[in-house]
Amino acid sequence: MAARKLLVDIHTHVYLPRYASFLRSRDVAPRIFSRTTPTGKTEERLLILDNEPSGGRPIGPQYWDRDEKLKFMDRHGINVSIISSANPWLDFLPAPTAHKLAGELNEDLESYCSTSPSISETGTTIKRLYGFGLLPLVPNISTTALLEIVDQISRLPHLKGIIMGTKGIGNGLDDDALEPLWAAIARANLVVFLHPHYGVDSSAWGDKDNGHVLPLALGFPFETTTATTRLILSGVFDRHPDLRILLAHSGGTLPQLSSRLASCVDHDPVVASRLQHDARYYLGKLYFDAVAYGSEELGFVSDVIGRAERFSSPTASADASKGLGFEKRVIGSSRMLFGTDHPFFPPLKESDQWKSVVENLEAIDGVDGWGDSEKDAVRGGNAVRVFGLESA
Amino acid sequence: MAARKLLVDIHTHVYLPRYASFLRSRDVAPRIFSRTTPTGKTEERLLILDNEPSGGRPIGPQYWDRDEKLKFMDRHGINVSIISSANPWLDFLPAPTAHKLAGELNEDLESYCSTSPSISETGTTIKRLYGFGLLPLVPNISTTALLEIVDQISRLPHLKGIIMGTKGIGNGLDDDALEPLWAAIARANLVVFLHPHYGVDSSAWGDKDNGHVLPLALGFPFETTTATTRLILSGVFDRHPDLRILLAHSGGTLPQLSSRLASCVDHDPVVASRLQHDARYYLGKLYFDAVAYGSEELGFVSDVIGRAERFSSPTASADASKGLGFEKRVIGSSRMLFGTDHPFFPPLKESDQWKSVVENLEAIDGVDGWGDSEKDAVRGGNAVRVFGLESA
Repeated sequence: MAARKLLVDIHTHVYLPRYASFLRSRDVAPRIFSRTTPTGKTEERLLILDNEPSGGRPIGPQYWDRDEKLKFMDRHGINVSIISSANPWLDFLPAPTAHKLAGELNEDLESYCSTSPSISETGTTIKRLYGFGLLPLVPNISTTALLEIVDQISRLPHLKGIIMGTKGIGNGLDDDALEPLWAAIARANLVVFLHPHYGVDSSAWGDKDNGHVLPLALGFPFETTTATTRLILSGVFDRHPDLRILLAHSGGTLPQLSSRLASCVDHDPVVASRLQHDARYYLGKLYFDAVAYGSEELGFVSDVIGRAERFSSPTASADASKGLGFEKRVIGSSRMLFGTDHPFFPPLKESDQWKSVVENLEAIDGVDGWGDSEKDAVRGGNAVRVFGLESA
Repeated sequence: MAARKLLVDIHTHVYLPRYASFLRSRDVAPRIFSRTTPTGKTEERLLILDNEPSGGRPIGPQYWDRDEKLKFMDRHGINVSIISSANPWLDFLPAPTAHKLAGELNEDLESYCSTSPSISETGTTIKRLYGFGLLPLVPNISTTALLEIVDQISRLPHLKGIIMGTKGIGNGLDDDALEPLWAAIARANLVVFLHPHYGVDSSAWGDKDNGHVLPLALGFPFETTTATTRLILSGVFDRHPDLRILLAHSGGTLPQLSSRLASCVDHDPVVASRLQHDARYYLGKLYFDAVAYGSEELGFVSDVIGRAERFSSPTASADASKGLGFEKRVIGSSRMLFGTDHPFFPPLKESDQWKSVVENLEAIDGVDGWGDSEKDAVRGGNAVRVFGLESA
C-alpha cells in the first residue's frame, strides 16, 4: 500500500486569512494587534485570552500563509497535514455571526486543501492538505443551524472532521441539547478533534511569573481531561458507539486517571448505574494524538487503549488486563496519530528543525514494544485509515 | 531482613478524636454534623467543603477509633500503617489556634502510634503504627512557629514525616517565605506527604450530578500536579536536593505531563534559565504512593521515575531514555509505596475486603517488568527504608 509510510500530521493549526482579518478588527481578546518593539520594529501579536501572560505572543505568516505551512511540512518530511483552525474558534461570537463565519471558513478551508498539491507518490490521489471544519458552537445557536453546518462539512470532500472546544453551546459537551449533534456527526462519519482552549481557573497558577508554562503544560490537558470525562459519564459513548473522537495532546491526563476514575465511579452507585461499562472501557473507543513529547507517555497511552476491551464489564477489576504485556501496546497503537501542534511552539533560534516536531518523532521511535509497523501506523498509516484519505 | 515482606500502608488517614470533636463544634465547613435519616436513624456526616455534593458523606468510628484502624489492617494483612490526618488539616484556622492545635495533635498522634502493638515478627521493634505530623500552615503564622513544630515532630519518635496540603501559608508551596521550612524539613530528614484538598474551581464540573466523582477523580490529582509543578519551577529541588516529598495518588497527573512540561519550559528561556535540569529530572527526586488502581498506571509512573536520571541535562531530548526498556521500571519501583486511602472509599456493601485495597494490591501484582523483589519493595520494603522503620 503506497500510503503506508506517509508522515501525516493530524494536529496542525491555521488562522485562515478571513479569521486573522477578523481578529485584527477587534479591540478585545481574542485579537491580533500591532506594536512597536524596543528596537523600533513593528510586530503583530496574538492575544488569545484576556490577562494572558507576556501580552500574548508574536504571530506571523506561519499562522495563515499556506506556503509557510507547506514549507514547514517539506522541512520536516511531513507528507500530509490535516489542518484545523486554532483556538478560540468561534466561541466568543454571537450566534448569527458565528453561524455565518463557520460556513465561510469551512468553504475557505476546503479551498485551502483542494487546491493544494498531491503527494508525490504515484498511484494515489492523496493531497498534501485536508481539514477539520468548524461548527458555530455558541450559546443560543439553534440545533438546525448546527446540523446544517455538519451537513455542509460532510459535503466538502477535503474536510474530514470537525475541530471542537469544550464549551459546547455554553454548558459543556455533556449537555443533553447536543444529542442530535453527536448523532449527526457519527452518521456523517466525521472525526471530532477535541481541543482545549480555556484551561482551568488561573488562580491555580499562583503569583510567580512562569510565562505560559502552567496554563499550557497543565491547564490545557486538564481541560481536555475534564471534557472527555464528562462525555464518558454522560453516556454519550454508550448511546453513540460509532462516534469517533480524537483527543488533543494524547488525551491530556485521562489515561493516567482512568483507573482512579473507574474506582470513583464504582464507589458511586448513582453514576455507575448510568454506564454500560467500566470507565476504562471507553478509552478504547477514543483516538489520541501522539503529541506528548515522550516515549514513555506514548507507550502508556497505548497501554490504556489496548487494555480497554478487557474492561467491558461494568464491574471489572484492576487485574483484568493482567498477562497482556506488550500486546496492549500493539493494540493501542492503532488509535494513536502523529501531530506537531504547528505553528505553536516555534524554535527559539533560527533552525531547520522544530524541536517540538523532532521530539514527537523521537518519542514515537523510542516506544518499547512498538515494532516498525506500529511506528509507521502512528506516523501516518492510522491517519490514512481513520480519515479515509485513500478514498478521498 | 525480617521486614522485607511487610505490607506497609503509607496512605491512610485519621481524624484524631481531638480534631473530630473540634469539627463537631463548628457550624460551617469543615464540620461534622448529625442528622436523622429517612428511616429514623441518627447518623453523623462529614462536610469537608462548602457546597459539597450530596451534603457531604457519612462518617463513623473508622475515622477516629484506633481499634477500627487495626481491625481494618488485620482484615487486609497490613502489617504497618503510617497514619496521616485527613484534609483539610488546619488550613481553615486562625494562626494562634492552628499553632496550638498542631502541637496538641502531634502529641496525640505520637501517643496513638507509640502505644500501638509491635508487629508479630521476631527480632524487630517495628510498631504497627507510625505517623505524619501536622504543621500550622496558615496565613500570618510566623516562620518561628513553623520551625518550632518541625522541631517538635522531629523529636517525636513515631512521627516520620509531615502531611501537607498545597496552600502553604496562603500563596502556595512556591512561596519564597517557605525556604527556611524546606531547609528545616530536609535537615530533620522528615518526609513530606503532599496531599490535595481543594481540587480546582468547581465551575469545571458542569451542571450534571456526578456526585463526588469529578472532584475526587480529577480535581484532587490536578491540585497535586499543579502544586508539585510549581515547586519544581520555583527551584526548590535544586536548592534542597535532600528534600523528600511523597506525592499522593501516584503524583496525580505529573508523570503523564512531565515531557510536555519539559517542552513548555524548553520553549520559555526565562523559566528554563531558572532550572538546573530538564523538568523530567525532578520526578526522580520524588516519591509516589501506589494509589492509582491500575497496573499500567503504576508501571508508567515507575518508568518516569526510572528515566529521570537520563534527563539531568537542562537541554535533554525525548530520546534520552531510549534503550532503557524495563530497566526504567525496576529503578522507578524503589520510589513507589503502597497505600489504601482508608477510611475513604468504603465498600458499598458489608464486605470483608475493601475494593480500593484489593485493587491497589492487584495493580502492584500486575505490573509488567516488576519481579517479586520490586513488588515486595513497593508493598512494604521501600516504606521500611524511606521511613527508617527498623531503626525506630
